[in-house]
Amino acid sequence: MKAKITFICIGTELLAGRTLNSNLAFAGKKLEQAGFLPTLELTVSDNPTDISDALDIAEKRSNITITIGGLGPTSDDITAETVYSFLHCPVHLNKTLVSQITSFLQTRKININLDNIKKQALVPENSTIISNANGTAPGIWYEKNKKITIMLPGPPQEFCPMFEDILKKIEDIFIPEFFRKTGFVIGTSEAVVAQKTVEVLKKYPMITPEYCACPEGVRLTLSTNIKYADKLKNAFAESAKRFGLSFTAGEKANIAKKIGDILVKKNWKLATVESCTGGMIAAKITDLPGASDFYCGSVITYSNEWKNKMLGVTSETLEKDGAVSIKTAKEMLKGIMTKYAVECGIAVTGIAGPTGGTAEKPVGLVYIGTLVKGDIHLTENFFKGTRKNIRERTVARALNQMYFHLKQVYY
Amino acid sequence: MKAKITFICIGTELLAGRTLNSNLAFAGKKLEQAGFLPTLELTVSDNPTDISDALDIAEKRSNITITIGGLGPTSDDITAETVYSFLHCPVHLNKTLVSQITSFLQTRKININLDNIKKQALVPENSTIISNANGTAPGIWYEKNKKITIMLPGPPQEFCPMFEDILKKIEDIFIPEFFRKTGFVIGTSEAVVAQKTVEVLKKYPMITPEYCACPEGVRLTLSTNIKYADKLKNAFAESAKRFGLSFTAGEKANIAKKIGDILVKKNWKLATVESCTGGMIAAKITDLPGASDFYCGSVITYSNEWKNKMLGVTSETLEKDGAVSIKTAKEMLKGIMTKYAVECGIAVTGIAGPTGGTAEKPVGLVYIGTLVKGDIHLTENFFKGTRKNIRERTVARALNQMYFHLKQVYY
Repeated sequence: MKAKITFICIGTELLAGRTLNSNLAFAGKKLEQAGFLPTLELTVSDNPTDISDALDIAEKRSNITITIGGLGPTSDDITAETVYSFLHCPVHLNKTLVSQITSFLQTRKININLDNIKKQALVPENSTIISNANGTAPGIWYEKNKKITIMLPGPPQEFCPMFEDILKKIEDIFIPEFFRKTGFVIGTSEAVVAQKTVEVLKKYPMITPEYCACPEGVRLTLSTNIKYADKLKNAFAESAKRFGLSFTAGEKANIAKKIGDILVKKNWKLATVESCTGGMIAAKITDLPGASDFYCGSVITYSNEWKNKMLGVTSETLEKDGAVSIKTAKEMLKGIMTKYAVECGIAVTGIAGPTGGTAEKPVGLVYIGTLVKGDIHLTENFFKGTRKNIRERTVARALNQMYFHLKQVYY
Repeated sequence: MKAKITFICIGTELLAGRTLNSNLAFAGKKLEQAGFLPTLELTVSDNPTDISDALDIAEKRSNITITIGGLGPTSDDITAETVYSFLHCPVHLNKTLVSQITSFLQTRKININLDNIKKQALVPENSTIISNANGTAPGIWYEKNKKITIMLPGPPQEFCPMFEDILKKIEDIFIPEFFRKTGFVIGTSEAVVAQKTVEVLKKYPMITPEYCACPEGVRLTLSTNIKYADKLKNAFAESAKRFGLSFTAGEKANIAKKIGDILVKKNWKLATVESCTGGMIAAKITDLPGASDFYCGSVITYSNEWKNKMLGVTSETLEKDGAVSIKTAKEMLKGIMTKYAVECGIAVTGIAGPTGGTAEKPVGLVYIGTLVKGDIHLTENFFKGTRKNIRERTVARALNQMYFHLKQVYY
């Protein structure tokens, strides 16, 4: 059977733009990975008329309706009662749920209000309960007349794991429509990725490629009808081979992790020196749990004085070539190498804007230096966009440059 | 007349979770600030049947339908033709648009394809064109039978400024329903904010408060029917007075900016020293254009060796008290003060997890030190949540602590 899925996202905060709908993005991504695509998504306020109307729209168009949000214990959470009234389904108090919710609250030393607990433990007869490890609202899976209605709570830390549980049940019942695989090509343009992929796909007319230029690299997605899954696996492997070292399979590029893996194997230490990115490279690396296994730290030099004092960039270079120059980038790198005795380093200096640019050195000009065991690579880069864009692109490019530099030395 | 607004967001990438719907959040926020709330939002794939169906749902429920996306020049962009066919409205080629799009492309040295340009310049008779400063797709405002249909392009850099233009037109025609003002209270709990606000609102029964605990502080929103706008302004001013220094009006807390303003006035310099946040405080401060006016930089010490070498934290302290201790935080601060001669400093050391915690020093334990002209404040903090949560909360708390410390000295 083919799945036709409608999401109903419930919450005034979504319509008022106070909350970004990250649940929909999470669910959509998971569904797509499993070969499904939702037909429709609706967002409505927390009011019974709008919710009933949305349920009606969904029922006419799909065989799976998934509501998200409005399952809390207080009086403004009205999703469950509205859904039950819409479906005309009798409900009863589930005693197991009452004791589960009670013990959840007890463990966390949260005040227990029996009316609130009873509200959340009132579920339809013959429904399946999707347990919630991170909150009190249970998820509900209810089937009637070959239509499935699923209710899940809104807080992402509760919604996401519960959605993964219901996805397994959906996969048991429905046949996926398509098959896809994703990877990242780093350090290459979208046009080159497209050109090489098209060559591979000559043999595979049933496969559709999709390219997306992200700061970390070009995301390449291949998809096809589920019956050609094996052919897609071959085409994906051939593309990966074609891109060699610059290819990395998976939904995320995770360059910092790849850098860390190499450094840990070699027992080398990394330090960074940042100017225009002001700590963003360090923050990205230390997002990784266990980054201290290979990362010593960073010196962020946001003034000429600090570039000189902390890294030994000479006053002559700062005056003649300027703080944003290839010579400064080189001296910053030499500074970490000699003063702080690390094997690997990243140095960045540039103009993030919006002010500070000149005709000769425009906003977006960034010098990136990388160091691997005495060997130094220096690049001149021009990034476009806002201050935020330029800083983010610099972080991605710097980590990519470090990764390729390491790969060159390592292999 | 009362505005009943439905958004139709068009794009398979939204349903497949590849793109977060930031346009809806932007539009919702702007509408709410102007006193409107959308009735419904629908997301559909790029296919004519689903788009027509959504237009039908919208038309039955609202007097303003706003489509977002699918206005590009290529064959897979089908929003405009689907809308025109649904509305049965005749279209004609707008020659002014043809020359505008041509010159937009010429300036950017983009290849000109006349068929593509003609596709985008085909607009309904008697429609108003919303000009697009950042792309080729024009926005369309079309009225028929007292219903307004608006089409806007999907790329956020095009959508956002165009949405602000159409909002002005909506405000000219429709009467807002409510009035609201928002501010942030920093360094106080949600319960205390609620208690003090409720006291102020005793005189104002027509005003509804709303509280949201964010990492930067508690967001306080007051809203009321548009006819009580003046009363709300008074109540907001009284609340602001009640919270004193910890209150800041506006949609964002912007603590780094507030710190910078004080430092620039006093001509003091700030440096930071980070361990568990690994550059996130520096990155937050340098988000501000012109941060170099008051910020020298940061030393990120992600190893004991660096804490000792870069900041002079003694081996004795690191061995006896440990890297995560109040004594280490203090020595880190003294290190920046004496070694790098700045007036103000922030030092942070903690355990972000998920590993590295012990019974005595659990994950989430963070010491924060702030320095203002020789005066040192040290706090012990326990944060809950994931590694990401703990790091983000530390950044917010550290900046808040610095702000209050400065305020104390400054006033």
